[in-house]
Amino acid sequence: MPLVRIDVLGGYSPAQRSQLGEGVHDALVEAIGIPKQDRFQVTAAREPGSLVYDPEYLGIHRTDGVVFVQITLSSGRTLDQKRALFAAIARNLAARPGVRPEDVFVNLVEVGKENWSFGNGIAQYAT
Amino acid sequence: MPLVRIDVLGGYSPAQRSQLGEGVHDALVEAIGIPKQDRFQVTAAREPGSLVYDPEYLGIHRTDGVVFVQITLSSGRTLDQKRALFAAIARNLAARPGVRPEDVFVNLVEVGKENWSFGNGIAQYAT
Amino acid sequence: MPLVRIDVLGGYSPAQRSQLGEGVHDALVEAIGIPKQDRFQVTAAREPGSLVYDPEYLGIHRTDGVVFVQITLSSGRTLDQKRALFAAIARNLAARPGVRPEDVFVNLVEVGKENWSFGNGIAQYAT
Repeated sequence: MPLVRIDVLGGYSPAQRSQLGEGVHDALVEAIGIPKQDRFQVTAAREPGSLVYDPEYLGIHRTDGVVFVQITLSSGRTLDQKRALFAAIARNLAARPGVRPEDVFVNLVEVGKENWSFGNGIAQYAT
Repeated sequence: MPLVRIDVLGGYSPAQRSQLGEGVHDALVEAIGIPKQDRFQVTAAREPGSLVYDPEYLGIHRTDGVVFVQITLSSGRTLDQKRALFAAIARNLAARPGVRPEDVFVNLVEVGKENWSFGNGIAQYAT
Repeated sequence: MPLVRIDVLGGYSPAQRSQLGEGVHDALVEAIGIPKQDRFQVTAAREPGSLVYDPEYLGIHRTDGVVFVQITLSSGRTLDQKRALFAAIARNLAARPGVRPEDVFVNLVEVGKENWSFGNGIAQYAT
């Protein structure tokens, strides 16, 4: 269910971008119990000037290694679960491919369970 | 009003990607009464590795023909309308350009009516 | 906090695309009090056919100079603030790089304050 969009600048190789996707997905599995197979992601490498970040907002020093992670997921996670998710993403991306934790920017967009179709024109999660 | 983002792998030609956009828009018109002229879409062809999907989640067999459709629209549609929309998208894309229904992944993001400006700096839908 | 996605056709130069980003950000600062440093944006130039807009919806005449602006931000802004934001974006983009106000399409996606991590795996805005 989560639909994950990852945007980075050109400094990450294709292999490293794959690791970004894996690290985010593993964090979703570990921290909030997303099924292992529930992985749907789009990752894009942007040209200089096309991805803009502030290098100091909130006193956090960011570099061109910045990773924007926008996750659309069903609503209902607690604040503790969201905190665990943010921490797991930063931890996983630090391990592989070696992203500075300051460079991990995450945003969650929450939607209703009935707002997903995983194929066949059916709202599989609707009750 | 709907803002539609469609992401696919490189197997779709530009003409086929146009058909994807038309099929999704026609489904919005047919199933939930979106005005025919209310069409705003961005479609992107992604490189292998940049669009990741699970080939078996929920027992649905997906291929590299997978189509991610993310639709931001005003809230207020009923579950029946959402179901009709998912079905219409899958049906239309099967007809043209021939997408397997299993390969049609759809996510809806709902926002308030006052969250749109269609030009001139005005919130045309706000009441 | 806002995560801004700007999509245009190829008629804007890189310098003009930077001006689009600056104009949108300045509008967020002016109209709804976003901190000056709180700037996170992704801008993409799309090929013909990949960005589709209706040239007449709601009687507003749009051209290939159309600019799609999708802003994810924390919820809580009043209708007046949203109206001021839409107006400021159109005004700023008209001033630089000279976008026709009819060509400025804006959508807001609202999320909870706890749905953001600005780095270090922490939900900085959660209370």
